Amino acid sequence: MVAMKWWGWGLEGVEFTHLDKPQLGPFIEQAIGLRVGPVTAPPPRLDAVQIPDPVLGDDLRAALEQAVGPGFVSVDPLDRVVHARGKSLRDLILQRRGEFARIPDVVVRPADEAAVSGVLRVAVDLDAVVIPFGGGSSISGSLEVPDAESRSIISVDLSRLDRLLDIDAPSRLARVQAGVFGPHLEEQLKARGYTLGHFPDSFPHSTLGGWIATRSSGMQSDRYGDIADLTKGLRVVAPSGTLIVRPIPAASTGPSIREMVLGSEGRLGIITEATVQVRRLPEQRTILGYLFPTFAAGLAAMRDIADSECSVSVTRVSDAHETQFSFATRKRPTIVDKLQSRALRLFLQRRLGFALDQMSLSFIGYEGSPGHVASQRRAVGRIVKRHGGIGIGSGPGTLYDQKKFDTPYIRDFLLDRGAAGDVSETAMPWSRLIPVYDAVTAAAQGAFAEIGVHGYLMCHLSHSYHAGACLYFTFAFTPAPGGDMLAEYEVVKSAIQQSFVDNGATLSHHHAVGTEHARWLEQDISAPGVALLDALFTGTDPGRHLNPGKII
Amino acid sequence: MVAMKWWGWGLEGVEFTHLDKPQLGPFIEQAIGLRVGPVTAPPPRLDAVQIPDPVLGDDLRAALEQAVGPGFVSVDPLDRVVHARGKSLRDLILQRRGEFARIPDVVVRPADEAAVSGVLRVAVDLDAVVIPFGGGSSISGSLEVPDAESRSIISVDLSRLDRLLDIDAPSRLARVQAGVFGPHLEEQLKARGYTLGHFPDSFPHSTLGGWIATRSSGMQSDRYGDIADLTKGLRVVAPSGTLIVRPIPAASTGPSIREMVLGSEGRLGIITEATVQVRRLPEQRTILGYLFPTFAAGLAAMRDIADSECSVSVTRVSDAHETQFSFATRKRPTIVDKLQSRALRLFLQRRLGFALDQMSLSFIGYEGSPGHVASQRRAVGRIVKRHGGIGIGSGPGTLYDQKKFDTPYIRDFLLDRGAAGDVSETAMPWSRLIPVYDAVTAAAQGAFAEIGVHGYLMCHLSHSYHAGACLYFTFAFTPAPGGDMLAEYEVVKSAIQQSFVDNGATLSHHHAVGTEHARWLEQDISAPGVALLDALFTGTDPGRHLNPGKII
Repeated sequence: MVAMKWWGWGLEGVEFTHLDKPQLGPFIEQAIGLRVGPVTAPPPRLDAVQIPDPVLGDDLRAALEQAVGPGFVSVDPLDRVVHARGKSLRDLILQRRGEFARIPDVVVRPADEAAVSGVLRVAVDLDAVVIPFGGGSSISGSLEVPDAESRSIISVDLSRLDRLLDIDAPSRLARVQAGVFGPHLEEQLKARGYTLGHFPDSFPHSTLGGWIATRSSGMQSDRYGDIADLTKGLRVVAPSGTLIVRPIPAASTGPSIREMVLGSEGRLGIITEATVQVRRLPEQRTILGYLFPTFAAGLAAMRDIADSECSVSVTRVSDAHETQFSFATRKRPTIVDKLQSRALRLFLQRRLGFALDQMSLSFIGYEGSPGHVASQRRAVGRIVKRHGGIGIGSGPGTLYDQKKFDTPYIRDFLLDRGAAGDVSETAMPWSRLIPVYDAVTAAAQGAFAEIGVHGYLMCHLSHSYHAGACLYFTFAFTPAPGGDMLAEYEVVKSAIQQSFVDNGATLSHHHAVGTEHARWLEQDISAPGVALLDALFTGTDPGRHLNPGKII
Repeated sequence: MVAMKWWGWGLEGVEFTHLDKPQLGPFIEQAIGLRVGPVTAPPPRLDAVQIPDPVLGDDLRAALEQAVGPGFVSVDPLDRVVHARGKSLRDLILQRRGEFARIPDVVVRPADEAAVSGVLRVAVDLDAVVIPFGGGSSISGSLEVPDAESRSIISVDLSRLDRLLDIDAPSRLARVQAGVFGPHLEEQLKARGYTLGHFPDSFPHSTLGGWIATRSSGMQSDRYGDIADLTKGLRVVAPSGTLIVRPIPAASTGPSIREMVLGSEGRLGIITEATVQVRRLPEQRTILGYLFPTFAAGLAAMRDIADSECSVSVTRVSDAHETQFSFATRKRPTIVDKLQSRALRLFLQRRLGFALDQMSLSFIGYEGSPGHVASQRRAVGRIVKRHGGIGIGSGPGTLYDQKKFDTPYIRDFLLDRGAAGDVSETAMPWSRLIPVYDAVTAAAQGAFAEIGVHGYLMCHLSHSYHAGACLYFTFAFTPAPGGDMLAEYEVVKSAIQQSFVDNGATLSHHHAVGTEHARWLEQDISAPGVALLDALFTGTDPGRHLNPGKII
């Protein structure tokens, strides 16, 4: 698998463009005061940045070559730089600035669990640090090397562990190596008639092991469950040996070991294999678009769907700001599109009384047999109607479905033009959605004012549970003239995160803790909660060889 | 709340009888060679057993009175004996034998979380041990005092923390004190139009906190989820302060603290409050009976239901042995019953080709709107038919529903007559159900042969998941003349538990580890898994004040 750009998201040559979206330039100018033109702040060339020599003794290097094979121990500068960080805005700013004082000294690529065990043994014996690396798509700083770390840093790239090993058909359980990337996993499953149904935005560039280590969630998790639900069995190379969680559907065998590995970000060991719940490919699959008069109406409809007998695969509602952004990213319309769009606008305004600047775009997904899909559509339709919403067919949903993995590229598009964009997401009980939304809006506006920038904040509900939902915020701004983008970003990001924990929401629903969210963890899970994590990490890794500094 | 009998299950005066079940006596005689007559081995009178004086210094007693109030510190012998153990067969044998060498020295009844904190602080400061006590229904030895424990033992009875504090209606979340018993909880919820939907066999005699501390599961958990799914928020009095898990629907905040408390059996602290997912009371609720030609056919039908678009509330299938036991517990039939029963028998044999000694009784539950219930019944009916099964209406299901909490009384009925009965339950992937069933059958028969007794083993599937199911085994035997019932019991129980872990099943699906299952834990969750638990317990309770010796 080819690794991502060292300075941005995705593969070299793939990028977001405004050129085919006539309304986007004006929208961005209005939203964050950025006049969109050609690239003004391109990423540096690798040969223009200073990369320190690796801290790697001959004995360590020899032992690693022994463990994984000589061809799979790399000190290549590009390799080290690609493995240096994830893809948070902070990461990208630091990468583009060429701040490489402390990055992995060596990248190893073990072929199997035995080789992973060998690497960990070497690290413990020779007092080095291991940082497991899946797709490198973390946006919480889970891959960051602590500045003060003087020991050798080994980035353990798991991409060679990429095979579907076995399917237990009666139990719908697939045993899979942890380094497999999303598309390759789904391709192997599809050949057998199955799907895992886990599609985070990072899907093309993230791995099964990474999803597990960060407690990931995907766009269809309403139906399939979050990765925490899907993961039944595990193999984890730990300092005390290989930890084995057998694929038991439910157990009362003390505090759940399975749940300790989920979200452990490499601090308990290196995940080499998982047994995951798969489902047969659905006969039918569709995502329908809906419009609600307001965001609040859309949220209330999702809450009622979660409380109903409906089972849907996707629930998503954008606030007015994000709805307007979505409309602004449409490609050049045909005359027919324009006429249809005008007719719809008139209908919404005159017949339904929508205020167009309050309108909320929603997607709801359906999967299963044709009869099931039809009956769920009818039942959802009744709830939507009760909240003043209206269906707009499958066109927008199909488009969303095709484009969903392109969104992360927009950040590089902004960075290339000197502007900042990032996301913060959270989850909370249904009763807290509006208060959290209002508080975050106020916090972000306060932060924009504090740093004196023209900023934009938008939001969507991305997952529903019986008890609550996930709200996903996206923000962007153009730094003040002469401003330090990283410092300004931290003002905005901190204001948003703080308002999460202050208002009954969590610091993260599916982006993990890493280093970037660690400072809010105690406010979220309480000091005795942090003490439990500390006992776990310190007790099993007293030498701090496993991704130190993450989570706590 | 009145505590259970000190020597048996349930309340004084309530007991199981064979007198109104004409076929039961002959069945038991055939099954385990016990001629059922009057009581031959009654429990002892409390004044006939030796109860040691409490190990309780004046300073400890005074500090406890300060913490909970003088009226709520008890050294009464009956109180201490009732709080001495749970209700495993081993517990009951030891209680009936009057083995009270090491039992709690004092029972305290705190009124609220502050008082619980006070008790824990006293225990840590004065080096005593606390054992939290809910309903005392544990059947895994979770309440056992270690024989060698020389420090004072404080049983912390939480039954005064019994209130529903608040319902967050939009989020369907109820904040409840942890000491509330099942019926009182449901009564408080019902008054507001809700249900938790958690109905373990111990329901009348167990508490919310106990369910959480042991990772309990109930008869309708197929619909409502196990207690691990239902528990969203927690308050736990721990040595480092009050651990607070906020009610977040899902989070990626590192290894789940919530899941560390679930199943912790008092080793991390004392659960004082939980925020649980509740649902509105269903409009309709019914449990229907079905008959399958064989147990294997019934299991295959449940597996297909779990893989279908159906959502049901109860899935239960008994093997032929348990089916025959069920039929033997029927009360004296009327002439109409007899005629109906004869007609059904003939129909099953002649028209469907059932072998009556292979037949498998099944219950499937439905809940929701009338339309939902009707469509689920139809969909399930098609699956049942595909596996050669046939519906037998709502009569048997209604009876099962009424009688489901009476089963644990049968053990005392047997003990009163010198015979032993107990249960072992497990969970595994669907592909392992038949192999585990066959292995357990062979293991139990081997054990019965080894100790030279006439034993009986029966089984039912009690819960279904997409990936697998729970098998619940019940066994009984009459000890060999002059045999030691406890030693013989341990031969049988061990053979069954060992065959679980040897065949891909867990040591327990919902009865927890306690002391009685601890010896198989490493074989289930691997040595590095045990190391994680050890790090957690040792790191947060180095002085071993919290229910020491449980789980590991």
